[in-house]
Amino acid sequence: MVAPREPKQDRSRATRQRLLEATIESLAEQGWGPTTVGHVAERAGVSRGATQHHFPTREDLITAALDYMFDTRMGDAVAEEGDLPTGAERTEAVVARLVEYYTGPMFKAALQVWTAASSDPDLRARVLPLEDKFGRAAHRTAVRHLGVDDADPRTHRLVQATLDLARGLGLADVLSDDSRRRGEIVKAWAAVLDASLPLPTAAS
Amino acid sequence: MVAPREPKQDRSRATRQRLLEATIESLAEQGWGPTTVGHVAERAGVSRGATQHHFPTREDLITAALDYMFDTRMGDAVAEEGDLPTGAERTEAVVARLVEYYTGPMFKAALQVWTAASSDPDLRARVLPLEDKFGRAAHRTAVRHLGVDDADPRTHRLVQATLDLARGLGLADVLSDDSRRRGEIVKAWAAVLDASLPLPTAAS
Repeated sequence: MVAPREPKQDRSRATRQRLLEATIESLAEQGWGPTTVGHVAERAGVSRGATQHHFPTREDLITAALDYMFDTRMGDAVAEEGDLPTGAERTEAVVARLVEYYTGPMFKAALQVWTAASSDPDLRARVLPLEDKFGRAAHRTAVRHLGVDDADPRTHRLVQATLDLARGLGLADVLSDDSRRRGEIVKAWAAVLDASLPLPTAAS
Repeated sequence: MVAPREPKQDRSRATRQRLLEATIESLAEQGWGPTTVGHVAERAGVSRGATQHHFPTREDLITAALDYMFDTRMGDAVAEEGDLPTGAERTEAVVARLVEYYTGPMFKAALQVWTAASSDPDLRARVLPLEDKFGRAAHRTAVRHLGVDDADPRTHRLVQATLDLARGLGLADVLSDDSRRRGEIVKAWAAVLDASLPLPTAAS
């Protein structure tokens, strides 16, 4: 499927990307156990040798996949920033979008890895820095989209609570479609934020 | 270790209980994969035959363990109801206690099962009714302890959001001790509830 004159470096990058995407899909759909390097290589249509050239171990592959998907998702969030409504509807739209991050394949994949890491000290050491990075970036994005002043301690806590709530809503969606109830919770929480947070410093 | 004149029925009940507790411990400490019937039997010091008499399949054992631990925890919650402070400190104490349910071994065990069930349709069919039962019981307990009127739709949503938040905080505690941050979030959330919920109907 590779165009004949595609430079080697681009081919390599495309192969890497295909492996990372196949990893997330495999984790989200089939879970931790079946997501081995061999399975991902087959799923991505990449040879075992080429796969191990890019990712020597299963942990390398899986942590790189989470990191890549997270960066991609955060890039999308920046790109979509202009689509957020201004005015009274903004808070609900921001909360709804944040919560969306936690109900997609990336969260479902991460959940498999977090859960496996809870009883695997080596994997835990690999994913803790990612958890930290993801948490900070998600917080920054929430603050920017809400247009609030994070230096205010109460605001800081309420933004954190919003992300904790989003994580909990993500977990509630793992076994069954919880979207209807979730929509009501998002609405109720956005109303609380509007009533509790100081007025946005900028919502443009 | 069984007293000589202990009736057969009591011995059987004690064996069953030991198996259920060993299942929760194994899930919480070692994760889904290693928690087989054989491993649990060994951990509980019960013969494989006796274990299979009580629980013919791994799914029987695991779902019974979650159900038993949940009922025990809810029983404790009722018994501890009198310890909750009345007055201004009550909301924070109730939220803190709810959140505690989601950071203990039972939540960590349940997380392993939920995560495994997400890619195992048979297991999912077994745990969905449990998820439903647990969610309703936790909601009823929260409403009773907060002393609020759940018939009010906004109150109903905010109690649900409190449980979703608790679930998210539980997940944030899986890989590292998040208790310090969590205490601040509980405080901030309780203040929001106090400002947002109609006055308690009864807090006695």
